[in-house]
Amino acid sequence: MSRFFSKKYASLVPYVPGEQPRDRKYVKLNTNESPFPPSPAVFNAVLEEAGMLQLYSDPDCSILINKLSEVYGVAPERLIATNGSDEALEFAFMAFCDGEHPIAFPDITYGFYPVFAEKNGIPYEEIPLNDDLTVNVEDYIGINKNIVIANPNAPTGIALPLSDIERIVASNPDNVVIIDEAYVDFGGESAVKLTEKYDNLLVVQTFSKSRSLAGARLGFAIGSPELIADMHTLRYSTNPYNVNRMTCAAGYAALTENGYYMQNAETIKRTRAYTAAEIEKRGFSVTDSKANFLFVRHGKISGEKLYLGLKEHGVLVRHFKKERIKDYCRITVGTAMEMKTLLDKTDMILGGEK
Amino acid sequence: MSRFFSKKYASLVPYVPGEQPRDRKYVKLNTNESPFPPSPAVFNAVLEEAGMLQLYSDPDCSILINKLSEVYGVAPERLIATNGSDEALEFAFMAFCDGEHPIAFPDITYGFYPVFAEKNGIPYEEIPLNDDLTVNVEDYIGINKNIVIANPNAPTGIALPLSDIERIVASNPDNVVIIDEAYVDFGGESAVKLTEKYDNLLVVQTFSKSRSLAGARLGFAIGSPELIADMHTLRYSTNPYNVNRMTCAAGYAALTENGYYMQNAETIKRTRAYTAAEIEKRGFSVTDSKANFLFVRHGKISGEKLYLGLKEHGVLVRHFKKERIKDYCRITVGTAMEMKTLLDKTDMILGGEK
Repeated sequence: MSRFFSKKYASLVPYVPGEQPRDRKYVKLNTNESPFPPSPAVFNAVLEEAGMLQLYSDPDCSILINKLSEVYGVAPERLIATNGSDEALEFAFMAFCDGEHPIAFPDITYGFYPVFAEKNGIPYEEIPLNDDLTVNVEDYIGINKNIVIANPNAPTGIALPLSDIERIVASNPDNVVIIDEAYVDFGGESAVKLTEKYDNLLVVQTFSKSRSLAGARLGFAIGSPELIADMHTLRYSTNPYNVNRMTCAAGYAALTENGYYMQNAETIKRTRAYTAAEIEKRGFSVTDSKANFLFVRHGKISGEKLYLGLKEHGVLVRHFKKERIKDYCRITVGTAMEMKTLLDKTDMILGGEK
Repeated sequence: MSRFFSKKYASLVPYVPGEQPRDRKYVKLNTNESPFPPSPAVFNAVLEEAGMLQLYSDPDCSILINKLSEVYGVAPERLIATNGSDEALEFAFMAFCDGEHPIAFPDITYGFYPVFAEKNGIPYEEIPLNDDLTVNVEDYIGINKNIVIANPNAPTGIALPLSDIERIVASNPDNVVIIDEAYVDFGGESAVKLTEKYDNLLVVQTFSKSRSLAGARLGFAIGSPELIADMHTLRYSTNPYNVNRMTCAAGYAALTENGYYMQNAETIKRTRAYTAAEIEKRGFSVTDSKANFLFVRHGKISGEKLYLGLKEHGVLVRHFKKERIKDYCRITVGTAMEMKTLLDKTDMILGGEK
């Protein structure tokens, strides 16, 4: 820390993303990326933009916003595009939360929520999940705080039905409820259609998972025109050209071939079911994941030991040191071949434990 | 504004970027873009990344940082890459300024500085430029405030010599001095080499102007390892993957062909000199610009009238409504052909005024 660093941030603990190792080649199942490459239209769109990079991007991302409007059936003024969904989430934290408007979220969820709250001086409450790692919906009914819920949740993968989301939103009419649907395309129920009914609901999604664009950085949010306008006020006070030319075009192109990505999501769901069954046979307990990852633990081997063992065998998964979930590992669902490698290496590690 | 918008931002007035019209084709001289396309290596680098977009980018941008280290002759730990230089500037405002550490900058300068200050609740002082729009260096000597100076300044294009920058930095040892060198490659003197001598100096640069990558969004900052570490703390608490895969690769590739870009900057300097002389012949006064734009005014026609007249004739320049500079227009230096069109249309407008 320099002698100039503002006291405001002196105790800020940054988010730690999953490892992106460059020392050796791993079967990389630690950051919930898609195992499928982007579709041909994305490739062509990026190519076209590459020759025009001397010109600023469209700050309104009109071509992308209009296509999102068509695909999701919501008016363009209900949409904002961001540099990854992290940016959409932080704009929402900043716009709607402050000292008088705290935010609540589960104790086990996306690790960026407490970072955004700390960074922006927003008081926050971490509501414990049930012992089985499900969200206790009653904890959120009429609590008169802003709320953010990842649905499906991470790293558990467990989803709430839309009826529960609606009860939470309807019971907190004077607070903003943010539903982070990063993983919704893998089996969750989206709350997008409720954004027309409730002016306090904001849905955040990403192109990083089901749409194979993690490396392009593209997220978006859907809400009432007023909520979205507030987020644009922050966006134009931060980085009006937040989404670069290539990413805007890539996002548009991906939406023109949406069937490919939704088909891939179906493939991942099938691979997830197969892998979950196989890993359960090996004595693991597995949460009911509706996401592109599995959250698993084994009575005979600690989460850290499994993580380290797999890493040694060339398979990267994610382990969190947080007390309540330190027995678990989060495993991204990759290709069937990658899952076979994971299972084989797991067998070797478990064999060594006997 | 929604009923949920935080009072913190209720009076925030966002930055207004230059128009990016899509209704018709203009000779676009309003946002200081390069008239030259990116070099072939950029094209190839982007192409290569386009097939790997399903994977997150490297949060450390190592390949780019190492190349910047080589080109600028500074250690990698003295460098941070950002989503455009706006992001680097805001990280610096956030990291080093607060209620007890206000910031000072010229009254006529990049319009984003007051927005960053307002947004982050940072007290700021706008120090008037001299009547000839030059910075009065004495105003900044030993003022015991953080300082940001664009050098060359925008929209005037006027540069301070490095000796003046050093006096400002040396006389405020307990405050951070940010030098925004967005336009430095067009004739300014860079303060990069002073960053090893002064731990309170931060230099911010961009790939948007001389390196033809405005649409890719890439900026960087150079300073002491401690200043840079503080900015990384904010970056990892905001958006660890702030620079996407394609942009990181494009920036690296551009640096491998740096000669092309520096040659283009020389061409722009020659075109600037020619255009300045021609426009002075037409009765304009022109500031001594070291940037890729001219800042001009004419006794017989208002800045707004010239702007609107040129726009009607298909040439976009930038006009600012701010009182002190409302008589001026800022004109990006494009190709020789674009400058000829500008001069011809200007003649038509001035002819109509007689």
